[in-house]
Amino acid sequence: MAVYTQVSAEALAAFLARYDAGELVSAKGIAEGVENSNYLVETTRDRFILTLYEKRVDAGDLPYFMGLLDHLAGKGLPVPPAIKDRNGVEIQELEGRPACLIKFLSGVSLSHPTAPQAEAAGRAMADMHAAVADFTLDRPNSMGADTWQPLFGKCGRSLDQIAPGLYDDLGFAIERVVPAWSGDAFDRCAIHADLFPDNVLMLGDEVTGLIDFYFACTDIRVYDLAVMHSAWSFDATGRDYRPDIGDALTRGYASRFPLSPFEAAEFGKLASGACIRFALSRAWDWLNTPADALVMRKDPLAYVRRLKHYDPALVTRVA
Amino acid sequence: MAVYTQVSAEALAAFLARYDAGELVSAKGIAEGVENSNYLVETTRDRFILTLYEKRVDAGDLPYFMGLLDHLAGKGLPVPPAIKDRNGVEIQELEGRPACLIKFLSGVSLSHPTAPQAEAAGRAMADMHAAVADFTLDRPNSMGADTWQPLFGKCGRSLDQIAPGLYDDLGFAIERVVPAWSGDAFDRCAIHADLFPDNVLMLGDEVTGLIDFYFACTDIRVYDLAVMHSAWSFDATGRDYRPDIGDALTRGYASRFPLSPFEAAEFGKLASGACIRFALSRAWDWLNTPADALVMRKDPLAYVRRLKHYDPALVTRVA
Repeated sequence: MAVYTQVSAEALAAFLARYDAGELVSAKGIAEGVENSNYLVETTRDRFILTLYEKRVDAGDLPYFMGLLDHLAGKGLPVPPAIKDRNGVEIQELEGRPACLIKFLSGVSLSHPTAPQAEAAGRAMADMHAAVADFTLDRPNSMGADTWQPLFGKCGRSLDQIAPGLYDDLGFAIERVVPAWSGDAFDRCAIHADLFPDNVLMLGDEVTGLIDFYFACTDIRVYDLAVMHSAWSFDATGRDYRPDIGDALTRGYASRFPLSPFEAAEFGKLASGACIRFALSRAWDWLNTPADALVMRKDPLAYVRRLKHYDPALVTRVA
Repeated sequence: MAVYTQVSAEALAAFLARYDAGELVSAKGIAEGVENSNYLVETTRDRFILTLYEKRVDAGDLPYFMGLLDHLAGKGLPVPPAIKDRNGVEIQELEGRPACLIKFLSGVSLSHPTAPQAEAAGRAMADMHAAVADFTLDRPNSMGADTWQPLFGKCGRSLDQIAPGLYDDLGFAIERVVPAWSGDAFDRCAIHADLFPDNVLMLGDEVTGLIDFYFACTDIRVYDLAVMHSAWSFDATGRDYRPDIGDALTRGYASRFPLSPFEAAEFGKLASGACIRFALSRAWDWLNTPADALVMRKDPLAYVRRLKHYDPALVTRVA
C-alpha cells in the first residue's frame, strides 16, 4: 500500500526503451495492491502500471501469475496482461527487483458496491473460472487449508491477547473445517483467492478490471466464491451481514456456474474456511505489527464475527 | 508522501458532480508532495490531481496558494490551476478535509538533472518571478529567517545528538546570516521557497510543470534561487558540489533576471540561509521521528555540509 522501491525518471525512461511502448510522459507512485511498489506510467503511446515485486511475492511464482493474466486476457476477460519487451520478455528486473509493465485498466474500486454491482462481479468470477478450463499451470495455495494449522500453531496462545477464547475457537474451527478440503468431492481450478472489492474495477454496473492476482492458485473452485462472499457481504466490522449483496454475488456466479446440490450444501463450510484464512493472517499481522506502526492493522475479529455468521457452532468462546 | 485520507469512489463521484469535469473513470492514490493526500483522477473529459490538505497545510493559507497558482497559470506559466466548480468555488471540503481539484500536468521529476535541464529550471523560476510583479497577495514565510532562532531554541542541545558541535555551529550561523534579511536591500516578491527537483516536471529539457507551492510566501526574490541552488547542485549527502549544475541554474535565472552586483556578492549568505532552513527543519523532524518509523528521515547533516560549502567559516565544529 506504499511505494517501497523508488524508481528514478531516468531509470524508468531507460527501462521503457526495452519496450515498443512509447516515450515516458509521466510517472506517479501509487498506493495500491499488496506489498509491491506500483507506478502509474504514461507514455506517448499508452498508460501502464509498473509493478516492482517486493519480498512478499516470490519471484519464482511470477511465471504462474503472468501466465494466468495472459491466459485470461487472451480469452477477452478484463484482466491486465503483462507487456512483452522487444525480445518477448515479460518479467524484467528494475532497481534490483523483479518488475513487470502491465496494461492499465480504467475503472474504480467501490467501497460500497450495490447488489447489481455485486451480481456483475459474481458473474465476472464465473467467467474467469470458465476461462481457466484449459489453463495448464499449477500453483499450491500459499494460504490454503493445509497452512492454517501451522500458522495457528505459530500464533499460539498469543491469540487470546486479541480476544479471550480466540485460541480455542480458531483451533476448534480449523479441526472442523479443514477436512472439507480432502478428497475429490469439489472441482478444483485456478482461482483468484483474494477477490475483495478492492480488486474489482468497475464503471457503473460494469466490471472493467479484475486485478491483483498475487494470491492466485489452484484450489476448490467454489472456495473462490466463498472468499468473495465473506469479503463483500459484510460491513467492515463483520457484524452486519447484507443478504442482498451475498445473494447477488451468488446469483451472478450461478448464472454461469450453477452450484451443485453438494456445493450449495457445503458452501457454509467453504465460507467458514475463508473466514479462518483471513482471521489467521490478520491475527498473525496483528501480533507482529507494533500498534504505533504507520501500517494499518486489520482487525482479525471482523473475520471471527463472519465465521460465527456462517456457523455459530464454531465461535462459542469469543464474545 | 502517502495517502492519509481515504476517499471512496462513491464520495469522489459525488464530489466530481459539483464540477463540469466529466464522469469518474479512474482514481489512484499517489505518493507525492508534502503531507497531503493526493489522487490522480481521470474522468471522461480530462485528468486531474485531487488534493486533500492534511494538518501541515493551514486551511487559512489556501486562498493565497490557489490565488498564486491561478495568477501564474493565467500568465501562461506551466503551473497547475485549481479547477472551479459550477459555482466558481475552488476550495472545497471532502471527507472532512479542505480539498482542491487541480489540473494534471505531464512531465517527470528528475533525480539527476543535467546542466541544460537545470538551466531551463532556473529560467522557469525567473519567469515565475517576472509573472508575480502584479500579484497582490502576501504571505509571511512560515519557515523564514525570523523563525530559525525560535526553531533552533526548540531543538536545543539535542542537536548535538545528531552530530557533536551542531548546536554551536548552527547557533553561530544563524547569528551571522539572519541580519541579511533586515532592511530593504533586496527585492522581495512571491517565491516558491521549495523548488527542489521533485517539484519541477520536465520532458526532455523542457519544463512542463512547477508544482507543490505549499511553502510559497513573500520573501527575498533571490533567496528562491538560493534555495534551488542548494537543493539541485549537490549529491544527496551534500558532500559533492556540482559546479556545472549550480552555474546552469544561475545562468538560466540570470538570462531573465540578471543578478545585481549586490545580489551576486550576497548570494552565498542567502544560500547559507537556505542551508540553515533545511538543516533546522530536518533536525527537528529527526529529533521527533522515531528511528523505526516508516517515514524516511532526511539527514540534516546533508545541509550542514552544504552550509560549509557556501561559507566554511560557519561550520567549524561538526566534523
